[in-house]
Amino acid sequence: MIPEEYKKMLGHKSVIREIAEFGSERAKEIGYGNVFDYSIGNPSVPVPQAFTDKLVELATSNNPVAVHGYSPSLGIESVREKVAQSLKRRFGLNYKKEHIFMTSGAAGAIAHALRAVTTQGDEVLTFAPYFPEYIPYVNQTGAVLKVVPANTADFQINFNEFEKMLTPEVTAVLINTPNNPSGIVYSTETVKKLAGILQTKEKEFGHDIFLISDEPYREIVFEGVDAPYIAKFYPRTITCYSFSKSLSLPGERIGYVAVNPECKDAELIIKMCGQISRGIGHNCPPSIIQLAVAEVIDMTADLSVYETNMNILYEELTRLGFSCVKPGGTFYMFPKALEDDAVAFCNRAMNYDLLLVPADSFGCPGYFRMAYCIPTEKVRRSLEAFRKLAEEYK
Amino acid sequence: MIPEEYKKMLGHKSVIREIAEFGSERAKEIGYGNVFDYSIGNPSVPVPQAFTDKLVELATSNNPVAVHGYSPSLGIESVREKVAQSLKRRFGLNYKKEHIFMTSGAAGAIAHALRAVTTQGDEVLTFAPYFPEYIPYVNQTGAVLKVVPANTADFQINFNEFEKMLTPEVTAVLINTPNNPSGIVYSTETVKKLAGILQTKEKEFGHDIFLISDEPYREIVFEGVDAPYIAKFYPRTITCYSFSKSLSLPGERIGYVAVNPECKDAELIIKMCGQISRGIGHNCPPSIIQLAVAEVIDMTADLSVYETNMNILYEELTRLGFSCVKPGGTFYMFPKALEDDAVAFCNRAMNYDLLLVPADSFGCPGYFRMAYCIPTEKVRRSLEAFRKLAEEYK
Repeated sequence: MIPEEYKKMLGHKSVIREIAEFGSERAKEIGYGNVFDYSIGNPSVPVPQAFTDKLVELATSNNPVAVHGYSPSLGIESVREKVAQSLKRRFGLNYKKEHIFMTSGAAGAIAHALRAVTTQGDEVLTFAPYFPEYIPYVNQTGAVLKVVPANTADFQINFNEFEKMLTPEVTAVLINTPNNPSGIVYSTETVKKLAGILQTKEKEFGHDIFLISDEPYREIVFEGVDAPYIAKFYPRTITCYSFSKSLSLPGERIGYVAVNPECKDAELIIKMCGQISRGIGHNCPPSIIQLAVAEVIDMTADLSVYETNMNILYEELTRLGFSCVKPGGTFYMFPKALEDDAVAFCNRAMNYDLLLVPADSFGCPGYFRMAYCIPTEKVRRSLEAFRKLAEEYK
Repeated sequence: MIPEEYKKMLGHKSVIREIAEFGSERAKEIGYGNVFDYSIGNPSVPVPQAFTDKLVELATSNNPVAVHGYSPSLGIESVREKVAQSLKRRFGLNYKKEHIFMTSGAAGAIAHALRAVTTQGDEVLTFAPYFPEYIPYVNQTGAVLKVVPANTADFQINFNEFEKMLTPEVTAVLINTPNNPSGIVYSTETVKKLAGILQTKEKEFGHDIFLISDEPYREIVFEGVDAPYIAKFYPRTITCYSFSKSLSLPGERIGYVAVNPECKDAELIIKMCGQISRGIGHNCPPSIIQLAVAEVIDMTADLSVYETNMNILYEELTRLGFSCVKPGGTFYMFPKALEDDAVAFCNRAMNYDLLLVPADSFGCPGYFRMAYCIPTEKVRRSLEAFRKLAEEYK
């Protein structure tokens, strides 16, 4: 039987998609260069040349059978080892390859992490504003996602609400820092407090609570920002990483699960990921991409444009009267709309060919998200449109 | 909570893995060239040069942001279009891109197909001998896999048993032809009869029965063998394809779901695959591999070695008294062991450095599988070992 569950999902129109469709239509009329598209989080800088060189070297190697051969179900051993060594070097935790599972990006990582530490009916908490794909990620595991309301003062954690919602049913907490959509980075103080509460509650409840840390934006942190490595603060941290943004290759689907070596079940969880994989048809990220990424493991694309863009936008938008917490990283910012209804506001923005995403679907109505992974010259040209838009609300 | 479901799976020791471990140990002692490893179905011929050329061209293009950018959730449109056109050209059905969903190999394809047409508690039938990964594929969807016993006379379908097991609970039938592990290709007669029974039962039960056709070996069919295209015979066919074997790149995880255009729900099923993907963290096969494969869509690696190897082995093994149905395709053959206990037989084979896989886990005890995707000179050298092994049973 065709299941109603997925059929129903088709009914929901995606706001981002509608905006993108408007954008393409409009581009046909006035040219793409004149549409200020802040709707999509697609990296705008090229992959490092070193990655391309390695990819070509692998593709043209004289042993194509080995290069394109099956990867072991947990990932290619040498690749897992290089990921572990890199994490150890950078963050000081004693990662070994046994703590690493290679995945198809962060989506693959989160899908496995959730299945590894939740059972039917368990609750998973996350914090608004949050990436809306967390809903299908969690719900299709059989667990239930509950969203802690936003702390709109600074988009750090709303601890009052969190403690109320942290019941014995909660077996996992899913965080994302640097955050999509707010651009905020959790401070050391926030992470310490979160870890402390989790440890207290674990004792009280008599069961583990896992911290699933979604970190695709880990390498995009702006100058002077305190960006603690989450796993250092909490032993039961499962880090879900993607190279999509750091290396600018989101289509190549490469990332990993790294379980904190101090977690007593670390090796078990990694082995279980291999079993979970069998049922969901995951079966490893592409071999050649695994091998190429391992060769540039500590490199990133030139990510500096994101900070440049952020500074230009933050300065001008706040000058125009927008209320906005200054992003600490990512390529997103998250201002308050100039009217209560962010959907109406974003519709009005379209009159100026500004594509902005209302944050209702991120669990934070009244705000909008801007993905400023676009050329700086376009950011500059868009300021006039923001001025005109703000003028309407004067 | 860490779910017992996956923990338990870890308890099962894989026979193939044990054999592989013996092989690696033995290779250290006597050299890999002297271990006759028929255990693993890893293609042994190189990817076509045209694929490599396209991959390099894409990697070094002057628009890396586009090449490595996100693929739409159903796959890159131009790639889906090329797959559809190729299927239409080759098999005459009116495929359009709306009938194609790009996947991470056949595993990804089957995982989506099963979720698209079964709900909790539905039964899925498959036929022994069968690929053992079908068990987790099906069971993790919430449906139940039931296995129709083998027809060991010719490894076509055991229709008597099939009709008994085809109850109203069955909503999908999963077939694999050319078959792993038997090497047999279902004849037109078999497929017609299967389709006829399914159509009769659909009317009787008042619900659709989907035919999920797992076809990674479609391009490996030997001379003179009747190899019908399954979907031509049954409208509710969901074809699950992988380029792993045809192009010799199993590690790159690229394949597709193609729903027969004559199925009234074809476009719905494809759209649902996109929704299913969100929950299992699939999110498309790698962009650059999608783009490269589309450029060589009607090519294959030089697959002729498999038929050469099959002929050598089939001739010698039958001469030595092995009972074996002659393979029509794939790179597998499936002889009867020379004693009732195929595990004992395969253990004895190891004394001659022959790595064979007992077929108990394929649902067909007493038989063994040989994956002859190895160099022909090695096949020839292995014959002496088979002779000595057979001698023991004289």
